[in-house]
Amino acid sequence: MGEWRKKIREVTPYVPGEQPQFADMIKLNTNENPYPPAPGVAKVLAGMDAGKLKLYPKPDARELVDALAAEYRVAPEQIFVGVGSDDVLGMAFLTCFTGEKEILFPDITYSFYPVWAELFGIRYRTPALDENFLIRKEDYFVPNGGIVIANPNAPTSIAMPLADIEEIVEKNQDSVVIIDEAYVDFGGESALPLVEKYDNLLVVQTFSKSRSMAGMRIGFAIGSRELIGAMYAVRNSYNSYTMNYPSILCGVEAVKDRAYFEQTKAAIVTTREKTADRLCELGFTVLPSAANFLFVSHKRISAEELFGKLREKHIFVRFFKKPRIQNYLRVTVGTPEEMERFLKEIEACLADMP
Amino acid sequence: MGEWRKKIREVTPYVPGEQPQFADMIKLNTNENPYPPAPGVAKVLAGMDAGKLKLYPKPDARELVDALAAEYRVAPEQIFVGVGSDDVLGMAFLTCFTGEKEILFPDITYSFYPVWAELFGIRYRTPALDENFLIRKEDYFVPNGGIVIANPNAPTSIAMPLADIEEIVEKNQDSVVIIDEAYVDFGGESALPLVEKYDNLLVVQTFSKSRSMAGMRIGFAIGSRELIGAMYAVRNSYNSYTMNYPSILCGVEAVKDRAYFEQTKAAIVTTREKTADRLCELGFTVLPSAANFLFVSHKRISAEELFGKLREKHIFVRFFKKPRIQNYLRVTVGTPEEMERFLKEIEACLADMP
Repeated sequence: MGEWRKKIREVTPYVPGEQPQFADMIKLNTNENPYPPAPGVAKVLAGMDAGKLKLYPKPDARELVDALAAEYRVAPEQIFVGVGSDDVLGMAFLTCFTGEKEILFPDITYSFYPVWAELFGIRYRTPALDENFLIRKEDYFVPNGGIVIANPNAPTSIAMPLADIEEIVEKNQDSVVIIDEAYVDFGGESALPLVEKYDNLLVVQTFSKSRSMAGMRIGFAIGSRELIGAMYAVRNSYNSYTMNYPSILCGVEAVKDRAYFEQTKAAIVTTREKTADRLCELGFTVLPSAANFLFVSHKRISAEELFGKLREKHIFVRFFKKPRIQNYLRVTVGTPEEMERFLKEIEACLADMP
Repeated sequence: MGEWRKKIREVTPYVPGEQPQFADMIKLNTNENPYPPAPGVAKVLAGMDAGKLKLYPKPDARELVDALAAEYRVAPEQIFVGVGSDDVLGMAFLTCFTGEKEILFPDITYSFYPVWAELFGIRYRTPALDENFLIRKEDYFVPNGGIVIANPNAPTSIAMPLADIEEIVEKNQDSVVIIDEAYVDFGGESALPLVEKYDNLLVVQTFSKSRSMAGMRIGFAIGSRELIGAMYAVRNSYNSYTMNYPSILCGVEAVKDRAYFEQTKAAIVTTREKTADRLCELGFTVLPSAANFLFVSHKRISAEELFGKLREKHIFVRFFKKPRIQNYLRVTVGTPEEMERFLKEIEACLADMP
């Protein structure tokens, strides 16, 4: 009796970041965009024919794939779409990493990589970032079962030059190299131009950050037809219809409005730079950010203490109790008004300090 | 060079059923509901605040889970929600079936079961339905690594009495038993009342059929807290946020409107019975259906030929070129008007026959 417990899969539960719900809160903890999605999204939602929900969506999410193909100038067959970039990356791990050799990704990077590796039984090794939190490209010039690089990296916010990315891809043509570009629109150099040259390269992006659509769950990957085809073969063996009808229609609107996209991106970059300057003046070390967040550390006050003090004021930032980065906070770039209040509270905290 | 191809996962691509797009078509091939979702769904969509899409949805899809918990009188911790019941079943396979022993499901059943088993490397055996396409419960009274029963079964449409389901669950308390109730609302007896008694039982249902929401991709499972907790541990190790904001809000509306749910269900059952009677009069064998589709066979005209003739008239039904059922068609129950046209075309086909 009850032996079924011994047959089920045991995983260490991944605990998602907190999603606090206070009316007066300033939410700078999950790298969401402070601006609403493109105006066309609201229009499409309001005018949506609910009657169409009775039918299955197109399994290939055709309209969305076509919009992305036009925007990024690739063939529709080179685009994989999924339920947020986590779904896309998870499917990519499941599809691309099944070999005997270890896959490689940095010791400090997106915390989901080891979780997927463990879930799917993929061995991995994590070369350490250097003392400035930079990825050492040479660490990836060794035999491996695959490579995953977040560029810009998280939570460090630091981007790697495209030439270095290309060198990694070029030297690893016998493995799939995944470049996770969740934050690339805020200042990184995308590896998309390399996709035509290297059929082992998979570039993953998301609508959750630069396109203000975290709530809609849309991510995508661009790669060679062969690689994307392999991912769809696995995906269709799991769930043929993952993109629901609203996500397909609203996703198209978000892609089409390039002016709004550029405008909100620029606003965030401006706010980021101003916030970084102010934080430096307040004695913070601020890593050079190419993302929509800052990774910061202070000499006098510990990250954990500052995290707690901000939390009391309903300002939520992200603290990772992990080796090497336990004295850093990851702070999402919000609106100018939000960052103003954030900075005021920081000043107050520092003034309180002995 | 190009050795990455040897490292990736090879699967036989699962080909989703066709989704034809003709203005005049009658679509009876994917068991969709012919009626729109509950009126509240359209209202919620039209009034949705697109600005909220910038934020991640609640990872636990709280409002939707609470609505289901209230409707089915279980604790929220006993409910798992996913992107259609395919996502829920896929996660259930990944979570529950990892043992050394073969899992069991019928030879003729939902065609995704062997696909998931192969994707996740789960061994399986498929006891044959009897000559009347009934599941022989005794086939499941043997040591196994898990059991999956669709009830009503697909594509046969036949329901198994709850007492037999209970006997299978009762005799297999050392395995997880999944009862896939995608079609149960149209006439089957749900195993939900057994969930309190057996902690190895997982009941899976969907919004795609009886709740007219195939386009929104919502499925759910109900089971013991322990089993549901194990599923969330795996799910959260894959993707923390699978349910997007519109699906959570619209799902709640679909669950709340019990009167509409009962009314559309009753309409479909009435149409089903009338259609079945007419088909019998036309010389068809019609299996006793407890679902929103009919599984039918004719002595004079082959299923493949009839499928082709209906297709020419833009009437789409489902034909499975598989042993034992290659002379059957699966016909979704549409509106009375749709079934009238379907029957007229059938009559014309039969009249044309020598």
